[in-house]
Amino acid sequence: MTQMMDIQAGGARARGRCDELGVAPYSDQSDGLFRPYLGPAHRATLGRLAQWMDEAGMSVETDAAGNIIGHYAGAHPDAPVLLIGSHVDSVRDGGRYDGMLGVTLGIETVAYFHSRGLRLPFALEIIGFGDEEGSRFPTYMMGSRSAAGLAQSIDDSVVDRDGTTLRAALSDWGLATSRFGTAKRNNVLAYLEAHIEQAPHLERADLPLGLVRGIASQYRYRVTLTGQADHAGTAMHERRDALAAAAEAIAAIEAIGQRDPVDLVTTVGWLSVENGAPNIVPGSVGFTIDIRAVTPGVRENAAQQISDMLQALSVRRQVRLDIERIQDLTGALCDERLTGLLCKAVEERLGVTPPMLLSQAGHDAMIMAHLAPMTMLFIRCKGGISHNPAESVENDDVEAAFQTMVTFVTRLGDTM
Amino acid sequence: MTQMMDIQAGGARARGRCDELGVAPYSDQSDGLFRPYLGPAHRATLGRLAQWMDEAGMSVETDAAGNIIGHYAGAHPDAPVLLIGSHVDSVRDGGRYDGMLGVTLGIETVAYFHSRGLRLPFALEIIGFGDEEGSRFPTYMMGSRSAAGLAQSIDDSVVDRDGTTLRAALSDWGLATSRFGTAKRNNVLAYLEAHIEQAPHLERADLPLGLVRGIASQYRYRVTLTGQADHAGTAMHERRDALAAAAEAIAAIEAIGQRDPVDLVTTVGWLSVENGAPNIVPGSVGFTIDIRAVTPGVRENAAQQISDMLQALSVRRQVRLDIERIQDLTGALCDERLTGLLCKAVEERLGVTPPMLLSQAGHDAMIMAHLAPMTMLFIRCKGGISHNPAESVENDDVEAAFQTMVTFVTRLGDTM
Repeated sequence: MTQMMDIQAGGARARGRCDELGVAPYSDQSDGLFRPYLGPAHRATLGRLAQWMDEAGMSVETDAAGNIIGHYAGAHPDAPVLLIGSHVDSVRDGGRYDGMLGVTLGIETVAYFHSRGLRLPFALEIIGFGDEEGSRFPTYMMGSRSAAGLAQSIDDSVVDRDGTTLRAALSDWGLATSRFGTAKRNNVLAYLEAHIEQAPHLERADLPLGLVRGIASQYRYRVTLTGQADHAGTAMHERRDALAAAAEAIAAIEAIGQRDPVDLVTTVGWLSVENGAPNIVPGSVGFTIDIRAVTPGVRENAAQQISDMLQALSVRRQVRLDIERIQDLTGALCDERLTGLLCKAVEERLGVTPPMLLSQAGHDAMIMAHLAPMTMLFIRCKGGISHNPAESVENDDVEAAFQTMVTFVTRLGDTM
Repeated sequence: MTQMMDIQAGGARARGRCDELGVAPYSDQSDGLFRPYLGPAHRATLGRLAQWMDEAGMSVETDAAGNIIGHYAGAHPDAPVLLIGSHVDSVRDGGRYDGMLGVTLGIETVAYFHSRGLRLPFALEIIGFGDEEGSRFPTYMMGSRSAAGLAQSIDDSVVDRDGTTLRAALSDWGLATSRFGTAKRNNVLAYLEAHIEQAPHLERADLPLGLVRGIASQYRYRVTLTGQADHAGTAMHERRDALAAAAEAIAAIEAIGQRDPVDLVTTVGWLSVENGAPNIVPGSVGFTIDIRAVTPGVRENAAQQISDMLQALSVRRQVRLDIERIQDLTGALCDERLTGLLCKAVEERLGVTPPMLLSQAGHDAMIMAHLAPMTMLFIRCKGGISHNPAESVENDDVEAAFQTMVTFVTRLGDTM
């Protein structure tokens, strides 16, 4: 315990580094944070992270997918790897800690062992995934999917809003697109990800840290309702109003999401009215539906209820329904043994048993679960607010996370 | 009757001319009709209309607001004027007959008297208003408002999407902006407007023509609901979802509009989700509300119900409500004497008494009512569909309208 107290600034430094990376040149947005995959801010950020990784005793590389990896060798040349990481990209008008805090905490964790000249029975690798948010391309978790070996080649149909392909963006960065498949990590013992909670359960429980039982499975749909464009003077009962139909659907989707307050969320986050104008009855409306649940079956049940509702609404309102599933992301359960070790580490540092949480937010860990057993450490964030400039964490909570991570790594080493 | 049968092509020609004007160069849109105020298509259209007016024996001018006027002198130099007209602009992806049919029918009506060398106790003026739809500038009925003397000067805050002011657009046309106030018509005896119904009541009644009791008053509002942007993993009960709130509001606005199926319509025709994305709980949504009713008080009552609903929703969902009234258009009742004459003209031509309709759509006639007594003749349109390329009328119905107009003008002359 005494040994740890002298490096108590680790948490504050991890948080401070996120703040430093929250503005230009580490943001492509002048009045807030936007750090899309393979953009200028992303490049500047990897440069700064590489300096910090180097100072923490790591050798640094950028892989063929634009992920940054800092390597801290283990006690033996053929030691397996404990991967610690999260993502470095952000949504537009994003928060500073979503993703990045898990990376800077990983660097602090290595710095702890490096400053003491300690080597573990495994190598430590800190990974900063280039894309988790789908921040530039209409894809998601491209960073962890390439690292987990789930994306072995480049999908040439992936194009950003400006018409630049993923392949061209990688080439512009000087990355060898023919070597994309080499981004897969090897000899991975386990994956640990620290992340802000993005929900207010820890704040309500007045606790700084939480464990994760699992990460929700996600469905995402694109829906188009097509009625009849009309003059706004058209009698109500003559209309086939696509926006009124969408409004009824959105209200119903919200109500279906509310039926399971513990383990289900439903979201309509994007909607577009075709040729919308104040004096026109909308003829066509497009919107997305996002459905998430951790417990197997809950997502599927909600999707069926929503589909049934839309079909009935389509018939009753005489609007054509087009629905396409555009994402099917399988969730993951955290590894029980690793989560047990993490629980003991929290108890050792804080003297309390952390709560077991469900993660409705997707995380790189759900992808990395395909490569190795994984666990996650959630850090309290103010109001549970994320994807927003108001995202906020406390230094004391980040310090608790840091000490927990060092303890977890130490105890994991003790088991080997 | 025999006298009229020999010019039976008047209706077909009026309709055919709308079709001719439905494509380039009379449209600024390559794949349909879009004829915004003071654009290239508008200019080309006025050139073609001037030819037809000239052939029908009229002297032609374009006034300082871009309205075209064809003048057919009365029996005496100081005879008052019977104005006949409608608008020549169209919405994007508009129909061919909305507005324009009233202008081409007016030209045919004059052609009838001109071909017989007949002069009436009043002059006939056919007017094609340049702006009724707000097709280019964020204004409405600029054409009839200038002709009625309600817009005596140019509002320099009126700017189109490209940043061009109304004043600059008028100047570009070679119109003397200092003379804008001269667009007011003088010595007007009455105003007659023929227009497609833009509702299916005549189609249902299996009748080609209808009279109009009055034109609805309109309110238009811009509403912004501001909640809290959040990650789509946020628990349902933690959210302050601006789009879910808007959806509930839109459903309620539709229900309020349905409470008076005869004389009330409510429309949300435009909606925008700020920073919308599939994986974000929307933080802010803007939308418009349009409320229309003919009977005094009905509009105000609906506006109050909607306002009360929005206030309650704002409190319950903890979303901030900003609401601004952006339009308050006073409706008008048609002149009873003129409408009685028009009724007799229909009975004389068709042998049936036409139904008395309410117009939820705004028309130039509601503005011209400020200048002179007015009446309107509605023409059946297919499915009541307007503001849509599918807008359609039958030649026989247009012919009936033409004969009714000639008869109305004749009988009005008989009364003087």
